[in-house]
Amino acid sequence: MTNPTAAMLVIGDEILSGRTRDANMFHLAGRLTEQGIDLTEVRVVSDDADAIRSAARTLAGKYDHVFTSGGIGPTHDDITADSIAAAFDTPIGVRDDARAILEERYRQTGVEVNDARLRMARIPDGATLIENPISAAPGFTIGNVHVMAGVPAIFEAMVASILSTLTGGTPLTSRAIHIFRGEGDIAGPLGKIADGFPDLTIGSYPFQRDGVFGAQVVLRGPDAARVDAALAQLKSDLDLE
Amino acid sequence: MTNPTAAMLVIGDEILSGRTRDANMFHLAGRLTEQGIDLTEVRVVSDDADAIRSAARTLAGKYDHVFTSGGIGPTHDDITADSIAAAFDTPIGVRDDARAILEERYRQTGVEVNDARLRMARIPDGATLIENPISAAPGFTIGNVHVMAGVPAIFEAMVASILSTLTGGTPLTSRAIHIFRGEGDIAGPLGKIADGFPDLTIGSYPFQRDGVFGAQVVLRGPDAARVDAALAQLKSDLDLE
Repeated sequence: MTNPTAAMLVIGDEILSGRTRDANMFHLAGRLTEQGIDLTEVRVVSDDADAIRSAARTLAGKYDHVFTSGGIGPTHDDITADSIAAAFDTPIGVRDDARAILEERYRQTGVEVNDARLRMARIPDGATLIENPISAAPGFTIGNVHVMAGVPAIFEAMVASILSTLTGGTPLTSRAIHIFRGEGDIAGPLGKIADGFPDLTIGSYPFQRDGVFGAQVVLRGPDAARVDAALAQLKSDLDLE
Repeated sequence: MTNPTAAMLVIGDEILSGRTRDANMFHLAGRLTEQGIDLTEVRVVSDDADAIRSAARTLAGKYDHVFTSGGIGPTHDDITADSIAAAFDTPIGVRDDARAILEERYRQTGVEVNDARLRMARIPDGATLIENPISAAPGFTIGNVHVMAGVPAIFEAMVASILSTLTGGTPLTSRAIHIFRGEGDIAGPLGKIADGFPDLTIGSYPFQRDGVFGAQVVLRGPDAARVDAALAQLKSDLDLE
């Protein structure tokens, strides 16, 4: 049995302009790996309705789950909900359950309910809401697409509540070793290990630190014993400790 | 005249597994914005030949430039060069000019030239080399695709040498203002500004800090005077100083 697959769609002019360094992709990737869901592709698109719609449609057709981040606030540039509804050819409008959540929160906090805020209650027909414990405005799941906020604190809370409802696969066991030799020196032995352990993913990530070249080698697989065996083999082939 | 468009293709299991937080996307986005080249889409794919080939082909057909990061080292998981060659239906093999660069560097440093290292001299026919001042192994440009290393120090050096050869567009003038009100309170006025200044991009990026909600509003456009006018208008509409 293979693990479920996932893709992430980041809606973010601020990432593409270089104004903001991604945090949500990094967070989601870690959580999915822990849960045994394989994040296989990420796309970052701008706040453009066509780009969001077509990317969402493509990814939803290709992977078991799609997680989106950004563009569900009250301002003119928040067009994710409508674009996702369009991707599923589904009507969208202010929905009573979402509206009730917002009005209840605003009653408590004395915040004015205005048209802009009510835009955050626009939910595609048939979607289920994702709770937002921080600022109330919900995300939603439609089909296999989970639509979440871009503010990291809210995104992370929504990810936690979604993942608690998803069945994962086998979390991979991962072992890493830093080898302070040029990648060109370890490539041969590493290739042999990769051939001998086809059930593992073996990655080599070169680094260069204060002029010293090395590589972090990461061995990953569902069976911890196999990962340890491959690591032991690698160490002996390279005469490491 | 509109600005040239660009996409980035990150080849990176280490990003998708959550082991590494992206740095190259953030760097490239900033450099392209400075040069007036619009980064419009980013894709992150795993070290998979089909995924790399098809993403490269799609992006190369859609944008003026494609910048790739990662997968051009000497190890078994470095399959980017061959995958890009396949995307262009171009033969690839060890090329004498690239081989000479490596052999010269290895002569200086006394490093052994082996088959693994010679893999880094595999360059598609007709590609031009991108200099690597740090570890010598070159990147390359084929068609409108610029293939670069994933190690940030090397990636950044390669980006610098490529961008010096590209014609940019009009760098955008950008002004940002932090507004400590809920986005729902500023959405109306912001929408009016967006309507009144169709030549600008106006983004609202909510934040939540120690329980205080606010938004950073970023106004961007080719004409600094218009950006300043929009900012002044926004401040007066919102009674800010």
